[in-house]
Amino acid sequence: MPVSTKPVKGTRDFDPVDTSLREHVKSVILQSYRNFGFNQIETPVMENIDILQNAEGGENLSMLFKVLKRGEKLKLDGPVAHENDLVDYGLRFDLTLPLARFYANTHAKLPKPFKSIQMGYVWRAERSQKGRYRQFFQCDIDYLGSASHTVEIELINASAATLTKLGFTEFTVRVNDRRILETLAKHCDVADKDVAGVLVTLDKLDKIGVDGIVKELQGRDLSLQSIDKLTTFLNAYLNGEIKLDTLQNHITGIDEQVISELGNIIDTATALAGNQYNVEFDLSLVRGMGYYTGPIFEVSSPEFGSSLAGGGRYDNMIGKFLKSTVVPACGFSIGFERILHILQERNFKESSTPTRSVILYDPKDANLQTLFLAANELRSDSHSVSLEIKQKNVKLQLESLKKMGATQFCTVSDGATAIEFKPLT
Amino acid sequence: MPVSTKPVKGTRDFDPVDTSLREHVKSVILQSYRNFGFNQIETPVMENIDILQNAEGGENLSMLFKVLKRGEKLKLDGPVAHENDLVDYGLRFDLTLPLARFYANTHAKLPKPFKSIQMGYVWRAERSQKGRYRQFFQCDIDYLGSASHTVEIELINASAATLTKLGFTEFTVRVNDRRILETLAKHCDVADKDVAGVLVTLDKLDKIGVDGIVKELQGRDLSLQSIDKLTTFLNAYLNGEIKLDTLQNHITGIDEQVISELGNIIDTATALAGNQYNVEFDLSLVRGMGYYTGPIFEVSSPEFGSSLAGGGRYDNMIGKFLKSTVVPACGFSIGFERILHILQERNFKESSTPTRSVILYDPKDANLQTLFLAANELRSDSHSVSLEIKQKNVKLQLESLKKMGATQFCTVSDGATAIEFKPLT
Repeated sequence: MPVSTKPVKGTRDFDPVDTSLREHVKSVILQSYRNFGFNQIETPVMENIDILQNAEGGENLSMLFKVLKRGEKLKLDGPVAHENDLVDYGLRFDLTLPLARFYANTHAKLPKPFKSIQMGYVWRAERSQKGRYRQFFQCDIDYLGSASHTVEIELINASAATLTKLGFTEFTVRVNDRRILETLAKHCDVADKDVAGVLVTLDKLDKIGVDGIVKELQGRDLSLQSIDKLTTFLNAYLNGEIKLDTLQNHITGIDEQVISELGNIIDTATALAGNQYNVEFDLSLVRGMGYYTGPIFEVSSPEFGSSLAGGGRYDNMIGKFLKSTVVPACGFSIGFERILHILQERNFKESSTPTRSVILYDPKDANLQTLFLAANELRSDSHSVSLEIKQKNVKLQLESLKKMGATQFCTVSDGATAIEFKPLT
Repeated sequence: MPVSTKPVKGTRDFDPVDTSLREHVKSVILQSYRNFGFNQIETPVMENIDILQNAEGGENLSMLFKVLKRGEKLKLDGPVAHENDLVDYGLRFDLTLPLARFYANTHAKLPKPFKSIQMGYVWRAERSQKGRYRQFFQCDIDYLGSASHTVEIELINASAATLTKLGFTEFTVRVNDRRILETLAKHCDVADKDVAGVLVTLDKLDKIGVDGIVKELQGRDLSLQSIDKLTTFLNAYLNGEIKLDTLQNHITGIDEQVISELGNIIDTATALAGNQYNVEFDLSLVRGMGYYTGPIFEVSSPEFGSSLAGGGRYDNMIGKFLKSTVVPACGFSIGFERILHILQERNFKESSTPTRSVILYDPKDANLQTLFLAANELRSDSHSVSLEIKQKNVKLQLESLKKMGATQFCTVSDGATAIEFKPLT
């Protein structure tokens, strides 16, 4: 039977060159987050299907990979009422939901507030398209158990510092607050049931402009008065007549504390940014997930197209797993695959790598014991020494070893008294 | 609806203390393998179900986690003939099968021979019992594309050196060869169909002794003559009358090259071991997987009970994915979860860790900008500085931060001009 050797649709095999870069970037991110006092945790790849399906996961729920029940639990004799009768687990679609379950499960042992790092794969059965993968890596930091807006400052500070360590500069951290968006919608007489839809449209402001927004809103069956109010507001915002600190003059019922804290987040984060990156208020930032409750942020740059990182406050999710308790929470996630793609396009090289030597030998005539002992002596964390069995076409062999990162080589044969490396050019 | 916050059955949540140790051990293993010139690769967690089910995976095939088809591919209207009609993917149960598919998929870009590292999770729906997990981590090195017995020497050398780096000493690398076992079975007139069963029994020699072996073989319906021949042989072996270099006097039809190469593997590996560990021939070593074709090895020690690592040569697997080509292959896998368990019991501490400081502050009265800038200044890869919002019970807070690894702290308030850390005791 012919068997395909391709990886499963939408997933990838990583060769040594890919893997080396991925592992390097992971280690830079992890180290940077650790420097900020965040603590790495880990949860299993599978979660109970009920937990995944009860989540406010939006369209992610339609992209679940579900795991078939096993043994006696799987009943196939009669008709199957629903596919959910067949499954008990699923692959996680993000790291936030597992974090919520983890925190409920282990919070007694953890500091309060708790600063977590999660680095791991998530799975979504996306339609295949360029740059979209069905297994992709996420790097999240989350701050659980504090409602203070200093949490947002620290998350922006840590995430942006991490991006600069990877060589990214001149990006912009765009900041908004879900409560401003919701009050704006109310101010424009948008009915509660229509708010989510209006926000989805608003998210496209920088792509389709006010005219495009109006067209979309008309399709959403909104009252003319609502569309009019929103249009007037957006035009004033885009003309620079409305800024964060004058929002209260333009939106009825806005909470002044929300505005002042958001101002403080942006001012402090800007001061911490120095001349490395920008932090600015962006009213059109919405972010997709339904669970956000306060400040939201996203890192972008015209140069990169899609966003490099994003996050926000979600005060109502963790508590759901801990009946009696409310646990304020805020997180920031770096788009690892996007970052990787950009670094590969930039032909990114690690700044310092160990010397990587190759010793070619013939297993038939070398004095194996002497040779292996000599290689063991040379080997250290700053000097990788690879014993390689000499092939017929040595030139081709050295070329392919060089592609894997080898920097120097030597060929030994019986009677060789010393290992003398020559650079691989 | 009440939702369980426990991880899926047989899997685990890892808190920061667990995760820190796991990551440290992973990095020691990865660094050590890299020092030997092996190259890390990575494959997706899911494989096509056909690939998994066509494998010589033995009992692992009955422990597959299978992934439900999605969308139109899932047909539930009529009766379901077999559960396999419902699934298209499965979670990998080891790293060897994915390596074979990977190599077939990417070998054109890889050096020949190719020395691979794989570090990743695998999944098996084992019956729950102590020390058995359904998601567990594996660390494999494999040497693809060389039939030379120096490959075995290098794998033993690299794996044993890695274990010694983790503080393991005085273990024994037991070595045998499948071809010896098969010739022995033939010598004892065991029918081909019974060989696998006899080897399963022989594997228990050190646990149940010759008497136990005889009893089991009688249950297997073997001829009296076969049992008699095998008993005589085993007694002579246990009495020390039969050693590796005298096997040819006791087993008809043994291949002398197999014996001399195995002797060379053991002698050279012993010389490389110095006084750190032992390497010895063990006729009763069998190893479970059906796919081994030559030398096999396992690291064990009376102190640890079960084995720490194991592997062997499997020359016939990779080629199956590459029709026209035979690709000799040999691998060694470290039992990561077993190692972790032992290190935790030993209360293992990393030899050098960065200073981990904590700054307690009150978000209401601190000068945030000055404070965050000062912390940014102090922070480096050798100094983690965590800003922590001061809680009502500072003593409790510091205690829990100390458990996460914090080593010193300071409390700041408005007007503080300098950050002075005190040790956390």
